[in-house]
Amino acid sequence: MSRHFAFLVTESDAASAITRTDVDAPALTVGELATQRGEGVFETIAVIDGHPQEAGAHLERLAHSAALCDLPAPDLGLWRNVVARAAAEASPGEAVIKIILCTAGSWATVGPASDHSAVRRDGVRVVTLDRGYDSGAAARAPWLLLGAKTLSYAVNMAALREARRRGADDAIFLTSDGYVLEAPTASLILRIDGRFLTPEPSGGILQGTTQLSAFAWLAGQGFDTAYGRIPASDLQASDAAWLVSSSRLAVPITAIDGEPIPVDAALTAELNAHLLTPRE
Amino acid sequence: MSRHFAFLVTESDAASAITRTDVDAPALTVGELATQRGEGVFETIAVIDGHPQEAGAHLERLAHSAALCDLPAPDLGLWRNVVARAAAEASPGEAVIKIILCTAGSWATVGPASDHSAVRRDGVRVVTLDRGYDSGAAARAPWLLLGAKTLSYAVNMAALREARRRGADDAIFLTSDGYVLEAPTASLILRIDGRFLTPEPSGGILQGTTQLSAFAWLAGQGFDTAYGRIPASDLQASDAAWLVSSSRLAVPITAIDGEPIPVDAALTAELNAHLLTPRE
Repeated sequence: MSRHFAFLVTESDAASAITRTDVDAPALTVGELATQRGEGVFETIAVIDGHPQEAGAHLERLAHSAALCDLPAPDLGLWRNVVARAAAEASPGEAVIKIILCTAGSWATVGPASDHSAVRRDGVRVVTLDRGYDSGAAARAPWLLLGAKTLSYAVNMAALREARRRGADDAIFLTSDGYVLEAPTASLILRIDGRFLTPEPSGGILQGTTQLSAFAWLAGQGFDTAYGRIPASDLQASDAAWLVSSSRLAVPITAIDGEPIPVDAALTAELNAHLLTPRE
Repeated sequence: MSRHFAFLVTESDAASAITRTDVDAPALTVGELATQRGEGVFETIAVIDGHPQEAGAHLERLAHSAALCDLPAPDLGLWRNVVARAAAEASPGEAVIKIILCTAGSWATVGPASDHSAVRRDGVRVVTLDRGYDSGAAARAPWLLLGAKTLSYAVNMAALREARRRGADDAIFLTSDGYVLEAPTASLILRIDGRFLTPEPSGGILQGTTQLSAFAWLAGQGFDTAYGRIPASDLQASDAAWLVSSSRLAVPITAIDGEPIPVDAALTAELNAHLLTPRE
């Protein structure tokens, strides 16, 4: 059976349906694409040996994104079934489920994950990039959809290309008034004076599911963890820093804007070993 | 022959191809949609009795958007042929060509336009909405893609829904420091003390093709036209104002944030009569 496959999910009060299909099955017609305009939301869920990681948190965020975008509320019971079926059939080792809800339909695709073992060990060089919004924008202007994981990700992709043009691998977005936000496809965790810090989600960033798992594990190991409003000047004060995301997991940051950041290889390995165990 | 149709456009150095297809033809597979992320650009070109309006300006903007998004440069000679073929087959009266370039392919769809005659006469009530970016963002941070017409339009669509929630029909975006930008799918023209004003495109807005045509006609009629940095406080000083766009053309604004704006019905009718004549 193919390890790349998809489910078409049709929600209806009368009879919802989960139909197994091919990733090459048509999703949008030419006419739908012409009117689609990036209106839709998504989630990426890692699967480890058949277990979907943090499925509950991902589906809650999916529902939150849908609400911000005025899309119909997804039936989370139905989606739990989709995720369970997808995970059960996924390739052994690491796999990835991607969920898409948009005006034209809803799907989950499943495929093997890329091999992230090198980047988890060797890390990434990042540059800071202005996200253009000040710290108050999300609260003041909810139509900017800053807390939603939408299909309108062109800016996130452009930021990654800008990072590569600058000789780096990834980016950290800053507010226009100089506070740390998130990476284009990951959350950020800093360690400063032995304390683990991440930007507070109220600043208009996504609540990172992997960041939540990492903080829970760090707290269990006896470390101090905190959310805060982090000025960009604190980045260089970090004695370790990571980008964390569902599929790549914890990736150490080796340099920010060309300035080296120390890598705690032992802790990174332990954290990733934990993130590779089944989690709810 | 169907009046709704499409062309699939395949560009290659060796042999580009224009294939007539159906708007119901598949554009994106499930797998492509899962990775597409709003990366693509588009244009909407009006067709009047078989003549594509301002085709040159639209195709130049398409190329500009593609460059900002690091997409391959479209072959504008090929696209002029696509537009000419599409226009020649379009329904009589007003029709619309939509062009999409994205990582998965390129298409032009063609169909009859909606009937905009009522809104061109009766106008729209608008509300001002903060776009979250300050006036300097576009120049400072090109990765925000502010001058590109991309498929990542979720914020534009959310702004229109917010306008409707506030009892209005459309919106005008403002910078976070209080300057006038554009509408989610249109340019803005104000008349203040007999002078026609539009926000300068350097502020990170699209250069409006219909706005250019309108200004050329107004100048030909002997009116003063100007580009400027327009503070939001000037909106209420307008003695007439319009949203202008390719398909809806010039729509008078009847109220801004609940405050009535005078409508110049005679000038609006003359301007739309001009915009409905064939233009290059």
